[in-house]
Amino acid sequence: MGGDFAPEVAVKGAVMAYKQLNTGCVVSDCRIVLYGDEERIRQLLDFEGCPQEAFDIVNTTEVIEMGDHPVRAFQQKQDSSIAVGFRQLAEGKIDGFASAGSTGAMMVGSTQIIRVIERVIRPTISTAIPTTTGQPVVILDVGLNVDCKPDILEQYALIGSIYAESVLGIANPRVALLNIGSESSKGNMLTKTTYELLQVGSETGRYNFVGNIEASHIFTSECADVVVCDGFVGNSVLKLAEGLYSITAQMGLTNEFWEGLNYEHTGGTPILGINAPVIIGHGKSTAKAIKNMILSTAAAIRANIVERLQEAFR
Amino acid sequence: MGGDFAPEVAVKGAVMAYKQLNTGCVVSDCRIVLYGDEERIRQLLDFEGCPQEAFDIVNTTEVIEMGDHPVRAFQQKQDSSIAVGFRQLAEGKIDGFASAGSTGAMMVGSTQIIRVIERVIRPTISTAIPTTTGQPVVILDVGLNVDCKPDILEQYALIGSIYAESVLGIANPRVALLNIGSESSKGNMLTKTTYELLQVGSETGRYNFVGNIEASHIFTSECADVVVCDGFVGNSVLKLAEGLYSITAQMGLTNEFWEGLNYEHTGGTPILGINAPVIIGHGKSTAKAIKNMILSTAAAIRANIVERLQEAFR
Repeated sequence: MGGDFAPEVAVKGAVMAYKQLNTGCVVSDCRIVLYGDEERIRQLLDFEGCPQEAFDIVNTTEVIEMGDHPVRAFQQKQDSSIAVGFRQLAEGKIDGFASAGSTGAMMVGSTQIIRVIERVIRPTISTAIPTTTGQPVVILDVGLNVDCKPDILEQYALIGSIYAESVLGIANPRVALLNIGSESSKGNMLTKTTYELLQVGSETGRYNFVGNIEASHIFTSECADVVVCDGFVGNSVLKLAEGLYSITAQMGLTNEFWEGLNYEHTGGTPILGINAPVIIGHGKSTAKAIKNMILSTAAAIRANIVERLQEAFR
Repeated sequence: MGGDFAPEVAVKGAVMAYKQLNTGCVVSDCRIVLYGDEERIRQLLDFEGCPQEAFDIVNTTEVIEMGDHPVRAFQQKQDSSIAVGFRQLAEGKIDGFASAGSTGAMMVGSTQIIRVIERVIRPTISTAIPTTTGQPVVILDVGLNVDCKPDILEQYALIGSIYAESVLGIANPRVALLNIGSESSKGNMLTKTTYELLQVGSETGRYNFVGNIEASHIFTSECADVVVCDGFVGNSVLKLAEGLYSITAQMGLTNEFWEGLNYEHTGGTPILGINAPVIIGHGKSTAKAIKNMILSTAAAIRANIVERLQEAFR
């Protein structure tokens, strides 16, 4: 149980996810495991009117706080939900793990316990952003690697392409490089060199590179399904959209597109390039966000995203 | 006369600027000089019902096209409006120059004819973006230097601060560094080192550095009056805002804040750090944008921005 409003909101979101996963199915192949204060979780399940047997519950007694040093907290708080969850994930007791708790601790678990897939230079965090057409666009990296080299971005094109195809069901996804002009000659040193690598990668069939995309076009999905950029730029793009969403909402302007940009409802950020499905939720996650985070984790497991990535980098 | 819709829209904008500059004044101290096909300009002034003597007109016979190579075109088309305008600016026949024509040619004129102020490492282009409070925020660089070093960004803090104070009338402007977190430890290699330089610069009284700002907060003006970033990031921020403006407008959502983001109406981008006031307009400039571009140029001249920058770098 993590996030600013845990465990109440986390349990509520889990119940919503449970209902959605089991709608119309006689037997669901998916089981949600909750990590946290068991007694409190059971009280909250009662409060939600949800049968106790809907979930497996693993009692944990410690909490990694937002102010804790991630590496130290992960080692010292061995009975926190994040530490226990990662252990069970490594042991194969669960198939995927998600939390809206400490992002730092989630990264420690991902890299130290689950570990990076061989030949992946750096793992990445991505976001599927909503667009005007309703089809999401995958943008990566969105903040994990803020000093990228061209070979790292080249791998992100492959990782993003596999994610878009296997998890989002987009056939032959169009991969674009975020740049400040559409022409191949445009950009800074990083994007100019990356452009050349992506052309080679596309020619050898690793992915379908369609060229540069300017930030003005990423929210329409007309040009690309996957947008590759370094983590500083990707994080700034997300934060700018968040800021404009907040302003627009406060001014009373709203519609389906803008509401899709409400980061409090988005389902979390998968860490890609590691040996198990792990999703980090926004600290401010609402119940809807927790629900979406769990559903995204289930989708990632069903899509065999990790096996596909391992295969691609073999 | 430059821009995609020249000379019609350019003349219309110039007439609007003339009227605004001369409203309520018996004698205006400001005279607008128009460069272009004199006969056509005179026809258009008649069409606008504007007296011919309102403007000085310098007849030019060549046009630098968008497809032209900027350096070659600037040298070869000596009788283009941009080449003639820069010559007259260098000779002191005019005090400032603005065009919505070829951005490349405008840069060539700025750096080769007007030249960079001594000790300025690289000139910069900035934009005053509208915010929710109505007070503009200066963001720089927005696309001229896409591979910035920390010492370049440190100078941009000073340049932006002087611009905000002298042209926009913001007293003791708050200068912030665009970053992916508010804490001083956040960022990529560039922003971490720049942060340290800005702290030193602030302590020595060069400007009022207030720390990092995340992209989510730049459109509120609550945190900063000047936002410093490298040109790749700044350009992406502007383009993303442009893209979201277009989407929002097409969906029929509008209000004063969003209309302020309409790049077709914004008055152009000053080139700062050179020895004369030069403003580049958007190729898609409307008459309102041309009017604002001329008014911005007049404001830059009146504010003695160039002298202030020369003084600051002496």
